[in-house]
Amino acid sequence: MMNHRKLRMGMIGGGPGSFIGAVHRIAANIDGQIELVAGAFSSKPEKSEQAGKELFLDSKRVYQSYDEMFEKEKQLPEEARIDFVSIVTPNHVHFDPTIKALQNGFHVVLDKPMTLTLDEAKQLDKVIQETGMLFCLTHTYTGYPMVKEARQLIANGTLGKIRKVYVEYPQGWLWTNFSEEENKQAAWRTDPKKSGVAGCMGDIGTHAMNLAEYVSGLKLDRLCADLNTSLPGRTLDDDGIVLLKFDNGASGVLMASQVATGAENNLKIRVYGDKAGLEWQQEDANSLIVRHPEQPDQIYRAGGNVPYLSSYALANTRTPAGHPEGYLEAFANHYNNFAKTLMAKLKGQTPEKEWLDFPGTEDGVRGMAFIEQVVKSGQSDQKWTKFEV
Amino acid sequence: MMNHRKLRMGMIGGGPGSFIGAVHRIAANIDGQIELVAGAFSSKPEKSEQAGKELFLDSKRVYQSYDEMFEKEKQLPEEARIDFVSIVTPNHVHFDPTIKALQNGFHVVLDKPMTLTLDEAKQLDKVIQETGMLFCLTHTYTGYPMVKEARQLIANGTLGKIRKVYVEYPQGWLWTNFSEEENKQAAWRTDPKKSGVAGCMGDIGTHAMNLAEYVSGLKLDRLCADLNTSLPGRTLDDDGIVLLKFDNGASGVLMASQVATGAENNLKIRVYGDKAGLEWQQEDANSLIVRHPEQPDQIYRAGGNVPYLSSYALANTRTPAGHPEGYLEAFANHYNNFAKTLMAKLKGQTPEKEWLDFPGTEDGVRGMAFIEQVVKSGQSDQKWTKFEV
Amino acid sequence: MMNHRKLRMGMIGGGPGSFIGAVHRIAANIDGQIELVAGAFSSKPEKSEQAGKELFLDSKRVYQSYDEMFEKEKQLPEEARIDFVSIVTPNHVHFDPTIKALQNGFHVVLDKPMTLTLDEAKQLDKVIQETGMLFCLTHTYTGYPMVKEARQLIANGTLGKIRKVYVEYPQGWLWTNFSEEENKQAAWRTDPKKSGVAGCMGDIGTHAMNLAEYVSGLKLDRLCADLNTSLPGRTLDDDGIVLLKFDNGASGVLMASQVATGAENNLKIRVYGDKAGLEWQQEDANSLIVRHPEQPDQIYRAGGNVPYLSSYALANTRTPAGHPEGYLEAFANHYNNFAKTLMAKLKGQTPEKEWLDFPGTEDGVRGMAFIEQVVKSGQSDQKWTKFEV
Amino acid sequence: MMNHRKLRMGMIGGGPGSFIGAVHRIAANIDGQIELVAGAFSSKPEKSEQAGKELFLDSKRVYQSYDEMFEKEKQLPEEARIDFVSIVTPNHVHFDPTIKALQNGFHVVLDKPMTLTLDEAKQLDKVIQETGMLFCLTHTYTGYPMVKEARQLIANGTLGKIRKVYVEYPQGWLWTNFSEEENKQAAWRTDPKKSGVAGCMGDIGTHAMNLAEYVSGLKLDRLCADLNTSLPGRTLDDDGIVLLKFDNGASGVLMASQVATGAENNLKIRVYGDKAGLEWQQEDANSLIVRHPEQPDQIYRAGGNVPYLSSYALANTRTPAGHPEGYLEAFANHYNNFAKTLMAKLKGQTPEKEWLDFPGTEDGVRGMAFIEQVVKSGQSDQKWTKFEV
Repeated sequence: MMNHRKLRMGMIGGGPGSFIGAVHRIAANIDGQIELVAGAFSSKPEKSEQAGKELFLDSKRVYQSYDEMFEKEKQLPEEARIDFVSIVTPNHVHFDPTIKALQNGFHVVLDKPMTLTLDEAKQLDKVIQETGMLFCLTHTYTGYPMVKEARQLIANGTLGKIRKVYVEYPQGWLWTNFSEEENKQAAWRTDPKKSGVAGCMGDIGTHAMNLAEYVSGLKLDRLCADLNTSLPGRTLDDDGIVLLKFDNGASGVLMASQVATGAENNLKIRVYGDKAGLEWQQEDANSLIVRHPEQPDQIYRAGGNVPYLSSYALANTRTPAGHPEGYLEAFANHYNNFAKTLMAKLKGQTPEKEWLDFPGTEDGVRGMAFIEQVVKSGQSDQKWTKFEV
Repeated sequence: MMNHRKLRMGMIGGGPGSFIGAVHRIAANIDGQIELVAGAFSSKPEKSEQAGKELFLDSKRVYQSYDEMFEKEKQLPEEARIDFVSIVTPNHVHFDPTIKALQNGFHVVLDKPMTLTLDEAKQLDKVIQETGMLFCLTHTYTGYPMVKEARQLIANGTLGKIRKVYVEYPQGWLWTNFSEEENKQAAWRTDPKKSGVAGCMGDIGTHAMNLAEYVSGLKLDRLCADLNTSLPGRTLDDDGIVLLKFDNGASGVLMASQVATGAENNLKIRVYGDKAGLEWQQEDANSLIVRHPEQPDQIYRAGGNVPYLSSYALANTRTPAGHPEGYLEAFANHYNNFAKTLMAKLKGQTPEKEWLDFPGTEDGVRGMAFIEQVVKSGQSDQKWTKFEV
Repeated sequence: MMNHRKLRMGMIGGGPGSFIGAVHRIAANIDGQIELVAGAFSSKPEKSEQAGKELFLDSKRVYQSYDEMFEKEKQLPEEARIDFVSIVTPNHVHFDPTIKALQNGFHVVLDKPMTLTLDEAKQLDKVIQETGMLFCLTHTYTGYPMVKEARQLIANGTLGKIRKVYVEYPQGWLWTNFSEEENKQAAWRTDPKKSGVAGCMGDIGTHAMNLAEYVSGLKLDRLCADLNTSLPGRTLDDDGIVLLKFDNGASGVLMASQVATGAENNLKIRVYGDKAGLEWQQEDANSLIVRHPEQPDQIYRAGGNVPYLSSYALANTRTPAGHPEGYLEAFANHYNNFAKTLMAKLKGQTPEKEWLDFPGTEDGVRGMAFIEQVVKSGQSDQKWTKFEV
Repeated sequence: MMNHRKLRMGMIGGGPGSFIGAVHRIAANIDGQIELVAGAFSSKPEKSEQAGKELFLDSKRVYQSYDEMFEKEKQLPEEARIDFVSIVTPNHVHFDPTIKALQNGFHVVLDKPMTLTLDEAKQLDKVIQETGMLFCLTHTYTGYPMVKEARQLIANGTLGKIRKVYVEYPQGWLWTNFSEEENKQAAWRTDPKKSGVAGCMGDIGTHAMNLAEYVSGLKLDRLCADLNTSLPGRTLDDDGIVLLKFDNGASGVLMASQVATGAENNLKIRVYGDKAGLEWQQEDANSLIVRHPEQPDQIYRAGGNVPYLSSYALANTRTPAGHPEGYLEAFANHYNNFAKTLMAKLKGQTPEKEWLDFPGTEDGVRGMAFIEQVVKSGQSDQKWTKFEV
């Protein structure tokens, strides 16, 4: 039985210069439920050491590889050992550390997409099911309180039967070719050995698809993709549009681009039912617009003191209305819910239903299926490709 | 040679209760270049009379049919006779009055879409070319000054080579079934005998397609459509998404819906090139957002006193910046440019290039081709359908 | 008894290059109730002639002075004579033509502010009361449908007892000194002989004050002004802030500036009661935001088909929701309501209550009182100056 | 000399149910530079214990009073002892713990306003100067990166000479009377024994005044206040408007309200110079609008990868553009800059200039002077009251 203490986290990846590693650490820090105590931050030992030092870690728990971390941490007394790992490496280094973590008894938070291939994802899923370990895949955007509110409004019937889903994720940061020196992330994101069969669709298309399914409560059934590679020298898609059909007959579209020159990161979703419609976008993340026919539009607002919000939105908000929370708090909500669930599990308690609302292995496997099938559809002359997991 | 006077307009359609007839009249009124002097406002004589009276027309020039109008007006002395007709009937009554107007020597302003079928549109086009009569098709949205500015920015290379076009037109007004009593326009818009082979795509999809070609300066080459009929009892599409490929290799998407419950009329276009991107939407019609990488975003603002705007934007603006002009002024810009061009023509003068920038027969024929081929693509299992005129 | 015909308007001022003259003509044109048939457009005869020609007027009714216009028009048969004049001259040429128009039997639409001094305004008011002539003062902004909606919401108690009014009118166009050649309007606006004792406060402060009283339904009781003249060589205020106290005890502030560098014309009002608050601004003129505690914010939207709007908003809207109407339509609403009321009057009919909702002599006199007392308060060391008419 | 380790923080106040205590802890957590190791969270021992347990503290370092904390912590070896305290109690419990902390050798982060009276603030200031201890006063809003950018743009002359400052802070949460059970914060905020002589002006007016001076780089010289107490039973102001004059002759206005029914927390500032203007508001915290005459408006955007931003904005941003950071990150920036400066100090190093940009004793004393003089001005019949520190 776990003592009353913070959870102990080890990190894999996230060395000097990593964007997403720093984000994961902030997300783990915010709510004071988790302490980072160990890490294998880079495949280059001196980089791992540097990171460990910057993070004020005990140098004995800064490892040269994740294999070493698993081995050494397992030998520590339970009182000291890490509870879970946070894996923030490029896509091609997701499968191996995750499966080893699980098999060595460490729970896992993993950056998306789940793996390099659908096949790997299914293998991971199997291990997760078999071991009963806790697994969180950080599809950031479902951590926003107003995204959770949107899901609840649809689940409780406010929009009626869903007919239409528009989801879009326009970015412009790959508008031109960068050298690896100029932009390290651009380098691996456009390298199929590290990213997998998809570029833009794997990086952000999966987020959009995950958001669409999460908010609408529907499951994707068929798709029709037009993928583009806009710059000479690139091998992966940097842009694409995908027609969607859902299991209830609703239709939709997913637009994702990394060559929408000048665009930042304004993920947006609109869902229309036979009673009402709603709209959310990251640039105005604390608002959720709900439109009923023949009535004034409504703006639902995030805030811990907002009486009309669902328990899911409220449980994922730290401040009263008007104190904007953003991307890092959305990310932190996944860590916080994972942590609370894990603590409950370790204490033999039942977690609250709101805590369980973080993305996991099903999201991961469906995301990998999306990547494989969107690429397949992009290459097909047929309009529709069945979405199969 | 025309005297110095206002142009004289006759109207066909636009009787009591017509939305678009009233809009055309306002658009013709605003700039004081045109006077409405005659009309055949309805196929029901008493309705036509009622409209003529409400509009303060001489009852002798309120006709029971457009055939009567053409015949009687032709017999008037040139000093009194109408110069042009404005045709604002449902789609199935576009071809006949237009061709008769042209053949009787009256210039034409016609509401879109051009005709009921592509074949009719081509016939009209031929007559227009042969007679040399002036023809304006009221694709409203290219009348907005900031839409014209967007076109000029792309034409002058500010965005570089165009890679991507997103255009969307979400409406919600057909979210449920209405009786004809409840909503007269809904009735004919969903009737294939009056609307043609497409519903939503004919009504607003054509506007979106026209806007995409106008702003980008590109021509549509291929398309892939997913059309939907969302309500029982409807025979025409009320919603659809169309993947686009343009003649320069750029790709895009066109989203149009009339069942986006709660949505009003926020036509929006985004275009991305290899140097910059831009964004315009009707709800913020007097702004044009331009995004250059690594620079602050720019907001171009409409206004007659704005020194950085193109001559096209300035020529279509009546007030200084900050005095919002809207839909009716955009509509009026087409009438005003048509009127100035017609006056120049009638006086044997050369029109300014800015006046010639109103939609005409090419827009009309391409719009009808879009309607036919988007329906064809919607029925096809093949991904891509060639866009042919 | 008036025949069934359009009203006939004569214009005073508004010659070549006039901004506000062109706006008045468009406003009179839009709804097809009024025809411009005569004018004395400039004190320079050749300018008046030029304007008359550009406007397609009969040269016999283009006059060299308003005195001539009144004299000649009076001699015309009632069937031809103008019904009213529209006076769009600089402030120092308001009193004389207005009083002569009234005394010669012509109704009047007058640009604001009413006169050069409060004393003149009271004299005019007296003549208007005595003659029973119809008088409209074009305080543009109360013509917006959502401003009318705001007034109705407050009148019907939706906001409860009003506690607070914020009104602001930031412009930047006088941010630097212009020569008369560069900016003719800037020249007379900064000349006390032509503008009166106030600059910014007369030009736009009066609009803001009028809007505050119109929307809130309250009357100004005391004020405390800080007026500024920001540029060397100017003699009138170009900026100021005024603390307000209203007759019900509510407080407020009025901010007006013409040196808010970069600002356009975004007049904005916020009103807070003990039940709810509301917010309107010209840059988003077709929306009215209403905020109730502990409920989602509401956005009321303009549109002729919007069932929840008041009869006042609906009567001043020409298009369905989502077809933005703007400044010119707001202006036109005053002309249209004035015209409908005048027609009813001339036909011995009772005007609808919605038509009577245009600004008149009380607005004018209070506006002039505001100008005089805001200047007085600006010069006073005492905090509060009583607002007296 | 300090070892390479995190800073150790003790907290005073912030027990169960405290809004601002939780905010301070999150702010201290985010960047991983600080660990909370001790606390005296409540004057009620069981509440303090409860908080300590929830925060996973060693129960030996959860104290029953701050006096006890100072005494016991001082006895700990330097290796274990707290470095600084974070004081988050109501205003009347600011002076005593702060002065004792300083005198016992603990640096201080203190919630604003600094003290209950100006006199206390000056005493504290003197002790801070004499002891050379580090002191941070958490005026949250100057922690936003785009607020820092605004200050830098003005400092580097982009706006020219400043003429006008509009700052506003509308809240609605005190729109009605709450019992202490309903709203604990409302209770002490409206109690002069706990809040001091001002209510709204002390709570949020000081934030607005601090923001105005920080961004403009100007110092307040005179003021003219209209303060209001809107509800029966209240003794302190819940609303007010203050005319401002700055040391360079610029004028301005400060609007603050807690009875702006329905308003959340949208602090906003606009500054106009003789070359350009700028605008920032908390609801769109990651944008800074800059307006130059005769050029497109510019939107500066927060983001760690934005090349045109100043070093001050960049040093206070954690994510690339488009990943919204908010209120908690702004708060954390003060903690992070305080922590980096303190670490440098403890290591005998020179802090970077960007780290030193956090609010301190001068802000605190000026804030208290503002509170006293705004109340005095509110009671005065004279227009202007000199601002004296």
